[in-house]
Amino acid sequence: MKNIMGNALTVTLFGESHGAAIGVVIDGISPGIKVDVEYIKAKLEQRKPYGKGSTKRREPDVPEILSGVFNGYTTGTPLTIIIKNCDTKSGDYEGTRYLARPSHADLTAFYKYGGFEDFRGGGHFSGRITAALVAAGAILMKALEDKGIYIGTHIKNCHGVLDRDFEDYEKDVKILAGLQFPVLENKDAMQEEILKAADQGDSVGGILETAIVNMPCGIGEPWFDTIESMLAHGLFSIPAVKGVEFGAGFKMADMKGSEANDSFKYEKDCIITSTNNNGGINGGISNGMPIVFRTAVKPTPSIYKEQKTVDFEKKENAKLVIHGRHDPAIIHRARTVVDSVTALVIADLLIIHSGTDYFRSEI
Amino acid sequence: MKNIMGNALTVTLFGESHGAAIGVVIDGISPGIKVDVEYIKAKLEQRKPYGKGSTKRREPDVPEILSGVFNGYTTGTPLTIIIKNCDTKSGDYEGTRYLARPSHADLTAFYKYGGFEDFRGGGHFSGRITAALVAAGAILMKALEDKGIYIGTHIKNCHGVLDRDFEDYEKDVKILAGLQFPVLENKDAMQEEILKAADQGDSVGGILETAIVNMPCGIGEPWFDTIESMLAHGLFSIPAVKGVEFGAGFKMADMKGSEANDSFKYEKDCIITSTNNNGGINGGISNGMPIVFRTAVKPTPSIYKEQKTVDFEKKENAKLVIHGRHDPAIIHRARTVVDSVTALVIADLLIIHSGTDYFRSEI
Amino acid sequence: MKNIMGNALTVTLFGESHGAAIGVVIDGISPGIKVDVEYIKAKLEQRKPYGKGSTKRREPDVPEILSGVFNGYTTGTPLTIIIKNCDTKSGDYEGTRYLARPSHADLTAFYKYGGFEDFRGGGHFSGRITAALVAAGAILMKALEDKGIYIGTHIKNCHGVLDRDFEDYEKDVKILAGLQFPVLENKDAMQEEILKAADQGDSVGGILETAIVNMPCGIGEPWFDTIESMLAHGLFSIPAVKGVEFGAGFKMADMKGSEANDSFKYEKDCIITSTNNNGGINGGISNGMPIVFRTAVKPTPSIYKEQKTVDFEKKENAKLVIHGRHDPAIIHRARTVVDSVTALVIADLLIIHSGTDYFRSEI
Amino acid sequence: MKNIMGNALTVTLFGESHGAAIGVVIDGISPGIKVDVEYIKAKLEQRKPYGKGSTKRREPDVPEILSGVFNGYTTGTPLTIIIKNCDTKSGDYEGTRYLARPSHADLTAFYKYGGFEDFRGGGHFSGRITAALVAAGAILMKALEDKGIYIGTHIKNCHGVLDRDFEDYEKDVKILAGLQFPVLENKDAMQEEILKAADQGDSVGGILETAIVNMPCGIGEPWFDTIESMLAHGLFSIPAVKGVEFGAGFKMADMKGSEANDSFKYEKDCIITSTNNNGGINGGISNGMPIVFRTAVKPTPSIYKEQKTVDFEKKENAKLVIHGRHDPAIIHRARTVVDSVTALVIADLLIIHSGTDYFRSEI
Repeated sequence: MKNIMGNALTVTLFGESHGAAIGVVIDGISPGIKVDVEYIKAKLEQRKPYGKGSTKRREPDVPEILSGVFNGYTTGTPLTIIIKNCDTKSGDYEGTRYLARPSHADLTAFYKYGGFEDFRGGGHFSGRITAALVAAGAILMKALEDKGIYIGTHIKNCHGVLDRDFEDYEKDVKILAGLQFPVLENKDAMQEEILKAADQGDSVGGILETAIVNMPCGIGEPWFDTIESMLAHGLFSIPAVKGVEFGAGFKMADMKGSEANDSFKYEKDCIITSTNNNGGINGGISNGMPIVFRTAVKPTPSIYKEQKTVDFEKKENAKLVIHGRHDPAIIHRARTVVDSVTALVIADLLIIHSGTDYFRSEI
Repeated sequence: MKNIMGNALTVTLFGESHGAAIGVVIDGISPGIKVDVEYIKAKLEQRKPYGKGSTKRREPDVPEILSGVFNGYTTGTPLTIIIKNCDTKSGDYEGTRYLARPSHADLTAFYKYGGFEDFRGGGHFSGRITAALVAAGAILMKALEDKGIYIGTHIKNCHGVLDRDFEDYEKDVKILAGLQFPVLENKDAMQEEILKAADQGDSVGGILETAIVNMPCGIGEPWFDTIESMLAHGLFSIPAVKGVEFGAGFKMADMKGSEANDSFKYEKDCIITSTNNNGGINGGISNGMPIVFRTAVKPTPSIYKEQKTVDFEKKENAKLVIHGRHDPAIIHRARTVVDSVTALVIADLLIIHSGTDYFRSEI
Repeated sequence: MKNIMGNALTVTLFGESHGAAIGVVIDGISPGIKVDVEYIKAKLEQRKPYGKGSTKRREPDVPEILSGVFNGYTTGTPLTIIIKNCDTKSGDYEGTRYLARPSHADLTAFYKYGGFEDFRGGGHFSGRITAALVAAGAILMKALEDKGIYIGTHIKNCHGVLDRDFEDYEKDVKILAGLQFPVLENKDAMQEEILKAADQGDSVGGILETAIVNMPCGIGEPWFDTIESMLAHGLFSIPAVKGVEFGAGFKMADMKGSEANDSFKYEKDCIITSTNNNGGINGGISNGMPIVFRTAVKPTPSIYKEQKTVDFEKKENAKLVIHGRHDPAIIHRARTVVDSVTALVIADLLIIHSGTDYFRSEI
Repeated sequence: MKNIMGNALTVTLFGESHGAAIGVVIDGISPGIKVDVEYIKAKLEQRKPYGKGSTKRREPDVPEILSGVFNGYTTGTPLTIIIKNCDTKSGDYEGTRYLARPSHADLTAFYKYGGFEDFRGGGHFSGRITAALVAAGAILMKALEDKGIYIGTHIKNCHGVLDRDFEDYEKDVKILAGLQFPVLENKDAMQEEILKAADQGDSVGGILETAIVNMPCGIGEPWFDTIESMLAHGLFSIPAVKGVEFGAGFKMADMKGSEANDSFKYEKDCIITSTNNNGGINGGISNGMPIVFRTAVKPTPSIYKEQKTVDFEKKENAKLVIHGRHDPAIIHRARTVVDSVTALVIADLLIIHSGTDYFRSEI
C-alpha cells in the first residue's frame, strides 16, 4: 500500500522536505478520543534538533488539524494534520542535484522516479517527513495511555556508549517520557560522543530500545501480521533504521533452548514469565509481559567530510562536500519517531481485535 | 490482512499441524510462468528434517496443485497448492493441552482464540505450515531465477560456530542452492554443535544470512513499503525469528558516518558502491548492489528437559516434560523458509512496479 | 486485491471449472462459530441446477473442510473449503477454443492472460466457482442468523413474469429460506417461461430482490466503504450480474424529494421510517430498516442457437453452435450466490465495526 | 479500507463541510504526469452550483497542491490537494442538530459516531467533500486523455425528461466535456423541470449515463475486482447514488440470451461487437468496446417543504423545516463526480495491470 500503513487504522503520509507542507491522514480512528494539542506539540518539540552541533534548520512545527476533530474530540472520520515547511533553503541542494549523496536516496529516487522526484533536501525521503508521523503518533499514544498502555524508548547504545538496561519497565518508561535526550544513565558521555563526531564533521549511530507496558494479552495476527511483523514493517520505514530485534533478539543465536525459553508462572492470578527473552510475544501474539525491542539506527549519512561519489548526470566519478544543515546524530530524534510508529501499530492491532470503538470515550 | 501477505502478489496461508492439509493460495501471479514441480519438491525436500537427532515425524510433503496451472504454466488466476498431513500423532499433545509449552504459542493462542484453537502440535502456529510457504516460494524463486535474480541463505552462526562471510555473492548463492545443510565452511563443527545439544535434550538457535543478487534498481516503496519493511514483515512471520538486520545492521551503532556511508563509483557503465553497509538498499529502494540481510532464529522451543510452566486450566504452576517429536535445531530448515518468503516479497515488489505481466513468458 | 474480497473478513476464491477442485479460504473469521455442515450442504443443494431443461452436468458438490474448524467450531484461523470437480467433460470445449462465445469471457480472458488461461468450461470465469462462494457464505449466513440477522432473495422478475413485492420482510425472508425456486407467488408462470426459452434453445434473465432483516444500526463506512459500495463490489463479481440498485433505485430518477425522502418516526422506542426508498441505508450506513436491493441478472449467455462470432486464432469471422451443457436460466441459482455474497459482506462490515470476536460463541 | 479507495492507485479523502478544509491524497500515482492546474480548476468549476434556484453557498474552490508535484509534474510520491472551506454558515445547522433530516445521514452518523460527529452541514457526509474527489479525478482524467482514453457523462433522465441516447460515443463524449449542463438534447426542458421543483420547494433526481471510450482490452480482475465491481464500489460512495447498471443493465431481465448476447465480428483487424448490451465488459474484463453505465441519483434530500421526522435527543416525533442552502437538483453536479470517480478507478486498474510507470511521460 505504499504510503499507507495499517489495516483497521491507517496512516497516509505525504510531503517533501522543501515543499509547501508535510502531513498525515489517520483513518479508521475511534470517535471520541480527546485530542490534546499541547501533547502533540510536546512530541514535536521532542523530535526537534537538540543540543550543540545539531542542524540549524529551525522549523516551528505547528500542527494544523484540518479535519476529523470536532469540539476537541476525534469524530471517527479521517483526521488530517499538516505542518507547513517554513525554513527551507533549497539553494543548498540545487548545485549538487546529480551528485549522489552516499547512503542517501538521491540515486535510488532517480532510478525509481526517473528525474521527476523533488530532490531538494531529500524530498519525500527526508527525515523531515517524520514530523507528521510524530503528530499522528501523539494522538494514539495519548489514547493508549488513557487505556493504561505506555510506550517508551531510550538510547541503549550511541557509538559504543551504553545506557543501563531497563529495570522497572513501567517506571523507566514514565521517566523517559519527560526526557528530551532519552537516556536513563550516562547522558553526558553520550552527548560528548556526539559532539566529538560533530567536531570531526562526522556523525554517529546507535541503538534504541523500546518497551510497551501493560499491553493486553492475545493481540497480534499470526501469518502474517504478528506484532513483530507489524512493528518491523513500520520501523523499517523510518529513515536510517537498519535492524530490529525483539526480546533477546540476535543474542538468541548463542543461546540454548533451555536458556532462551521463558518459563511461565502464576503471580497472584496473573501468568507472567520468569525471563522475557521473547520480548512479550509468543507466536506473534502478546503474552502480557512488556513488549521489548531494539532498533538499529545508522549514523546520519550527511557529514561534512569530503566523500567519493558519482555525478549521475555527467556519468563520471566525483567528489562531494555536503554543505546544507545536518545533525551529527539523529538517534535521539529517531526515538520520538519510533515511539510514534509503535503507538500507531499497536493501536491498529487493538482496533483490528476490538473494533472501531475501542478508544471511544463516553460523551 | 492477517493470513494474507503482499500487495500485488498475495499469499494466503492456511492449515494446522494435525489437520487434513496445509496449503497456500497465490493470487496476482503473472500468467505464463513455467511451473516446475520437481523444483518445488526439491525445495520441500530441503526444508525437511535432516540429520541425526531431528524430529521423527516423516511427512511425504507431496504438493498437489488444485488450481491456477494449466498445461504446465501459471494461468494468472489463483494458484492453490495443498500438502496433506499424513504422519500425525495427535495423542502426543492431548494430555498436556493446558500445560503451556514455554516460548510456544499455546497460551497466547488460548488468549486469542479462547479455547477454540486447534492445539494439536501447535495447530496453525506450527512450523509445519511453512511447508506450504516453501511450495509457494519455489514457484516465484524459479521465476526470479529466469529473470537472473538469485536468492541464497547460509547459516552464519549456529550457537557460536561461525560460517565464513559471503565473498563472491553470485557464486556463493549458487553453491548454497545445492546444499541441504547450507554452510559455506565449517559444516561439520556446526552439525556437531547441534548433536551435542540433542544429546543434552536441548536445542540451539542461530543466525541466517541471505543475499539477493542481480536485484533490479529502483524497486521498493518508501513510506511504508521499503524493501526492508516488506521483507521484515514476511520474515517476522516465520516462527522463531526474533531479529532482522540489513547490511551492517546493528553494527551501525558503533560506526561513524564516514565509515558507514557506502561511496558510489562507476564500474564500466554501472554505478556500484565500494562497501555495502546499507545492504543494497538506500531510502528503502534497491541500488543495484546485492541485498544482504541477517535473520536471528531462536533455539527450538521444544526441548526434552523438564521445564517450569503453568497449567492454565487448573490455574496453578506445573512442570512439563515435552515428549512429541522435535528438532534440536531448525536453523537449516528455517533457511528454506527465509528463501521462500524473500522470493515472494521480492516478486510482489517487482509486480507492483512493473505490472502483472512481469514474469510472463512468451507462448 | 483481485481474488480476495473483504477487509476484516476476507474471502479468497480459487479454481477452474474443469480443474481438480474449486475452493475458498475465509480469513479473519471469529473463533467459536458453530459450523453446520448440513447447512452448508443445503445451500450447495439450493445452488444446483434444478428443473427440466437445466444443465446435465451433475456435481456431487461435497464440501471438504481442510482447515480452520476444530471440534465443530471455527478456530479463528483460516477456514478452507474445497469442492472437487467430478463430472468434467473437457472435450466439449477443445474444438471451439478460439471461437469466442458471445457474452462470455473467452476473448477477454485471452486478452488478459495471453493464451495461458484454462479455457475449458470458462475456466476461472465459470459460474461453477460460485459453489465455493456459497459454501463460504453458508457459514457466515448461519452465524448471522444466530445473531438474528436474516437474508433472503426472491426472483422479482423473470423475463417479464413478476413476483409479488415483499410484504412482511422477516416472514417472507424465512419463507424463501425453504424454497428451492425462490418465488413468493407466480412460480409456475416463471418456470413455464424458462421452459419456453429452453424449448427454443434460448435463455432468459431476470431480477433478484434481496432483503436483510434486523441489520444493526450504524454499520457501514462512508467514503468509500458504504454498505452499497461493499455489497455492489461483491455482487458485480458474480457472473451475469449487470445492475444493482438499493431501495427505490432507478425509480428515484422520476421522483421528487418530497416523495423519495423517508420520514423518520418513533415506533415504541425505536426509530423507523415510514417508507423505505433508501433501502435501509442513509449516507452509506444502516438505519435499522430492512436493507433492500435488486440485482439484474443477464440471460445465460450459453444458448443452443447458432451465433455469429470470431475465430481469434484464424482471425476471421465465424459461426458458433454451443454444445456443452447449460441452463436456460440461472436466475434461481444466482439467488443463492447473491445470498452468500451478501452474508460475507455484511459479516465483514460487522467485524470491522465490532472486532474479530463478534460472532464468537461461549464455550 | 474506509476512506481509502483503490489498490495500486489509492485515494484518501478527508474533510467536513464546515471544517477548515477538505482534501485528498493520491498515492501510487505515476511520476511524470503533467499537472494542469487550469484543467483541475475547470473541473471544479463544472461541479459548482449552476443556474437559478441552486444553493447560495459560494465557495471559491481553490485547489492547493501541498505535495507530490514538482516543476509541474507528478513526482510519484503522494499528491495532496486541499481546498479550504470559506463560506460556512454553521449557525444554519445548530438549532436543528437532533432533528434528523430525512434521507440524510444525520441519524446514522449519530448511531455510528455516537455524537462525536461534526454535524454541521452534514460534516464528512456532505456533498461538499466531492470537490476534493473532483480535483483528484481531474489529474487522472487528464492523464487518461493523454493516453487517448476519454470519459464523459450526460443526464439521461431528469424527473422523466430524457436526453437522447449516445450515438457516436467518442464525439458525444468530447461534446460533453465542454458543457456545464451535460445534456446532448433537451437541455431547456430539463432545466425547466428543475426550476419547477425549486419553485415548489422540492427537488428532483435523475439518471446519469457515462461512456469510457478507447479503453484498452484485457483490463479488470475477475473475482472480485471486475471493472463493474470497482466502478460500482466508487460510484456507490457518492452521496445520493442508489443504482448502477452496465450496458443494458436492468433491461436484461426482459431479454432472451439470443437478444442480449453481443456478437463478435472483425472490423478491419479489430474485434468489435455488433451490439453493446454488456457495456464493453465480459467476465469483468474490458473487451475494447465503449464501457457504458448508468447511475441513479436520488432527488436532493434537502427540500424546503415541512417534513415529518424525529428529535433524537428529546426522543419524540417532530416536524422539520430545513433552511440552510440547497440545490433543487444535484444531478448535473454529480456528473462531474461520476466522471472523477471513473477516472480514478480506471487509472487504478491500468496501473495494477501495467505497473506504476504507466502514465509516466518522457522528461
